[in-house]
Amino acid sequence: MAVQVSVCGPRECTEREWDHAYETGRLLAGRGAVVICGGYGGVMAAVAAGAGSAGGVVVGVLSAADRSAAGPDLTVALPTGLGQARNALIVNAADAVIVVGGSWGTLSELALAMRRGRVPVVQLGGWRVVDEEGRPPGGVLHAADPAEALRLTGLWE
Amino acid sequence: MAVQVSVCGPRECTEREWDHAYETGRLLAGRGAVVICGGYGGVMAAVAAGAGSAGGVVVGVLSAADRSAAGPDLTVALPTGLGQARNALIVNAADAVIVVGGSWGTLSELALAMRRGRVPVVQLGGWRVVDEEGRPPGGVLHAADPAEALRLTGLWE
Amino acid sequence: MAVQVSVCGPRECTEREWDHAYETGRLLAGRGAVVICGGYGGVMAAVAAGAGSAGGVVVGVLSAADRSAAGPDLTVALPTGLGQARNALIVNAADAVIVVGGSWGTLSELALAMRRGRVPVVQLGGWRVVDEEGRPPGGVLHAADPAEALRLTGLWE
Amino acid sequence: MAVQVSVCGPRECTEREWDHAYETGRLLAGRGAVVICGGYGGVMAAVAAGAGSAGGVVVGVLSAADRSAAGPDLTVALPTGLGQARNALIVNAADAVIVVGGSWGTLSELALAMRRGRVPVVQLGGWRVVDEEGRPPGGVLHAADPAEALRLTGLWE
Repeated sequence: MAVQVSVCGPRECTEREWDHAYETGRLLAGRGAVVICGGYGGVMAAVAAGAGSAGGVVVGVLSAADRSAAGPDLTVALPTGLGQARNALIVNAADAVIVVGGSWGTLSELALAMRRGRVPVVQLGGWRVVDEEGRPPGGVLHAADPAEALRLTGLWE
Repeated sequence: MAVQVSVCGPRECTEREWDHAYETGRLLAGRGAVVICGGYGGVMAAVAAGAGSAGGVVVGVLSAADRSAAGPDLTVALPTGLGQARNALIVNAADAVIVVGGSWGTLSELALAMRRGRVPVVQLGGWRVVDEEGRPPGGVLHAADPAEALRLTGLWE
Repeated sequence: MAVQVSVCGPRECTEREWDHAYETGRLLAGRGAVVICGGYGGVMAAVAAGAGSAGGVVVGVLSAADRSAAGPDLTVALPTGLGQARNALIVNAADAVIVVGGSWGTLSELALAMRRGRVPVVQLGGWRVVDEEGRPPGGVLHAADPAEALRLTGLWE
Repeated sequence: MAVQVSVCGPRECTEREWDHAYETGRLLAGRGAVVICGGYGGVMAAVAAGAGSAGGVVVGVLSAADRSAAGPDLTVALPTGLGQARNALIVNAADAVIVVGGSWGTLSELALAMRRGRVPVVQLGGWRVVDEEGRPPGGVLHAADPAEALRLTGLWE
């Protein structure tokens, strides 16, 4: 079975985040990875468009119970009907998680991925977390660009 | 986006159910439909093998939180970690539901599909339901073979 | 921790089903059992009212993401936001499942309870299931009245 | 129906976090609130013990599919079988969310509560989040002690 990489990020994103997500999707599809995302706009649409541009398979795991708001570049849209509980599914499906940009929903995915703890979690920009002493709790990898994000996943060593 | 058809059935199945599921998968992929299934053995493996034989995309929506028990013919395996609550997702993802054979898990998917009520539900063999007066509650379509099952979905009229 | 019994049934029910559900709730609360139900109308409201009349704790596990449509007699309302996937939770929470009346949603709960297979499942009326040979697949217990339903759970032997 | 308040926090906690959680539970039960928590150890056990000490109703929404690891002070234990997807349910059930201490699982609950955006979210200590400019994204309330946490929920004005 193909490698599966989940790419998370906000529905509303900056142009730079769009570019990062698109390029991440393009590179992942080029490596033969299946891309999993939330299936809506912003970073989710960008990674789907990027993966689609390279002929990749992209799955949108939707919060809604139907596909009416799904993005146009998905190979498959899975309307879970679970609301934000679906964020856990996006994380469970991944051999690595790449996070582009920040929002509360995105942070919940980052946190769920770290809670799961089985696969690399790489951030491209986005929000930061510090513990009570002001120190990062550790474990999240930080990349400067999509190529480094793929490298940090360790999936293609 | 492609048409999506969910095919449900037991993990342990008869040879006849295997053949029906394989042929259903093959015909669906031939029509360009994405096939959704539970991702494990029996009917689920048969429909995946059939769809794969025709070059189709098959998604296994797994009850477990990891992919270790997923079948070999899936394009994508989504380990939901939801247990049997994932049956509702298989149903939500579908433009039509085809049920091959019977088991309690399969019946839960049939019942959830009828409860949802938005798309055709077609049975190929399997268990039957009757109300307190001994009458079928109505609405389920019954097909004698895979070709008729596809026809009864009404998706390719 | 207290014994927990889930009582399932349709949102629209007959007067006889209402009476059965109310009496089932009353008897369960009298035994000190926590009653779990779907939290809306019909059989769900009847069992909540019956349990409440005996001072019992009743939990409504709602399909919606908020409590706006929850019944008035619940001690706690849990708006899961999972849609019909919540039916699996109602079943998982139970030391025994009692089913009053029939509907597709109710049947999905009965089937999920039998699929889980760990606790007694008792039907008071409602739909029946037969396999391809026309025989009941076995395992479901049938009670003529609420007192017999409690007895068949085997929880108070 | 009673006010419902969810209290989130790590399975392993400091003595100070235990005391804060216990006192929060005790105060909430004293106000007649139903307390919702994750149902296991650490902060979850402390808030359950505190609420129980005041005769309150405490619901543990468990990640597992059975109750074997549930804490001893729960009135009701709901084994969702959803894994960490159950964190979304804890958040959906609340008229206010109080977070005591920090961990990745706890942060996912904080983030899901902020993503939902409908009710006050109050932190007692724990991890902090900053956006790309190093500023807190806003909206989370911070309390110095349990009494202030209850006050900041605005539920008893």
